Amino acid sequence: MEAIPLLTLKRLPQYLEALYRFKRAGLKMVSATKIAVFTDVHMTQVRKDLAYTGVVGTPKIGHRIDTLIQAIEQCLNWNDISSCFLVGVGHLGKALMGYSELSKKGLRIIAAFDNNPELAGSYYQGIQIQPMSKFSNLLSRLHVHIGILTVPAEVAQTIADEMVANGILAIWNFTPTKLNVTEDIIVENIDMSSSLAVLSRRVAERLHHLNS
Amino acid sequence: MEAIPLLTLKRLPQYLEALYRFKRAGLKMVSATKIAVFTDVHMTQVRKDLAYTGVVGTPKIGHRIDTLIQAIEQCLNWNDISSCFLVGVGHLGKALMGYSELSKKGLRIIAAFDNNPELAGSYYQGIQIQPMSKFSNLLSRLHVHIGILTVPAEVAQTIADEMVANGILAIWNFTPTKLNVTEDIIVENIDMSSSLAVLSRRVAERLHHLNS
Repeated sequence: MEAIPLLTLKRLPQYLEALYRFKRAGLKMVSATKIAVFTDVHMTQVRKDLAYTGVVGTPKIGHRIDTLIQAIEQCLNWNDISSCFLVGVGHLGKALMGYSELSKKGLRIIAAFDNNPELAGSYYQGIQIQPMSKFSNLLSRLHVHIGILTVPAEVAQTIADEMVANGILAIWNFTPTKLNVTEDIIVENIDMSSSLAVLSRRVAERLHHLNS
Repeated sequence: MEAIPLLTLKRLPQYLEALYRFKRAGLKMVSATKIAVFTDVHMTQVRKDLAYTGVVGTPKIGHRIDTLIQAIEQCLNWNDISSCFLVGVGHLGKALMGYSELSKKGLRIIAAFDNNPELAGSYYQGIQIQPMSKFSNLLSRLHVHIGILTVPAEVAQTIADEMVANGILAIWNFTPTKLNVTEDIIVENIDMSSSLAVLSRRVAERLHHLNS
């Protein structure tokens, strides 16, 4: 299986969103140029990215939208549901447990973990919440490869270490902690703190200019 | 007010996390080198970034942790609470309404909006949920500059347009839609789809190699 470059992977979901829109609007065919306009990516780049999906368009006609959607979804492994465990059932953890987009994008949370004894054994959105003490045992029994990390920053590294020690291959990290793991572990960060830092500072700069 | 470079802004919250850790561990002073080790950023870069905060360290001794925390928080405008509106009270919207980290980082959601009539007038986490019809009126009365967008992808652009038309300066966009707004509007994207695309594909590639 060919390794698709990082930036291509990050753009493919944007193309998908555009394709879903074209489909909802009743279109059957689309050109790379049209995708480029909607996603604000240069058309040469769009063509290069689409080449990774293996789909070949017809000159002057373009691509069948359905075929292209299917090919991108397959590239992103979104047709194939991966089971995952979530650790940290706070506000953010609960949001992900209830987020139907995840299963559309190939990720299914099959168990959640939290060290709050009041939560142990209860269900949220049909997903059972387990104590951390059951993590290792369930992980090895259920062959889960992906862990979602939604714990407080100060325990993020400890839980990540526990995930890795129990055979997790990939961590989706929603904490602001930069995880220290070996290179063979796949880590994807959703860094709300960095994003909020940029937003807050830029707004402050803007207001400063408007008022001066 | 000086414009801080984007990448510096994105790193400052990482330094803060490290500084909070040092402080919890009982330390009073810290060197740029130590921050570099904990955040996995080169120490030359750490020094350059810290220079934007205006704090000057003492050679061979380093920085007072408290002073540095305060200086970075001020740079990020986290001491100054900005009011914001949230649109889209689904799972993700609710998570943000209950997320105490936001107010620690200078952002307070003072009203939420949703076009589901069943939610109108109700409260979640102490925040009242209003119908979209009240958006424009409340926005102009309350001088709010930041909008958080947690609506479904297909209505994201429409709501963003409404935000901009009513004077919002900055949009924190949690939808996978690439917003089409004028250049003077600040947009920060939390792109879970792109992140999940990278994660899913890399796991598929890894498993393919392990099994072949």
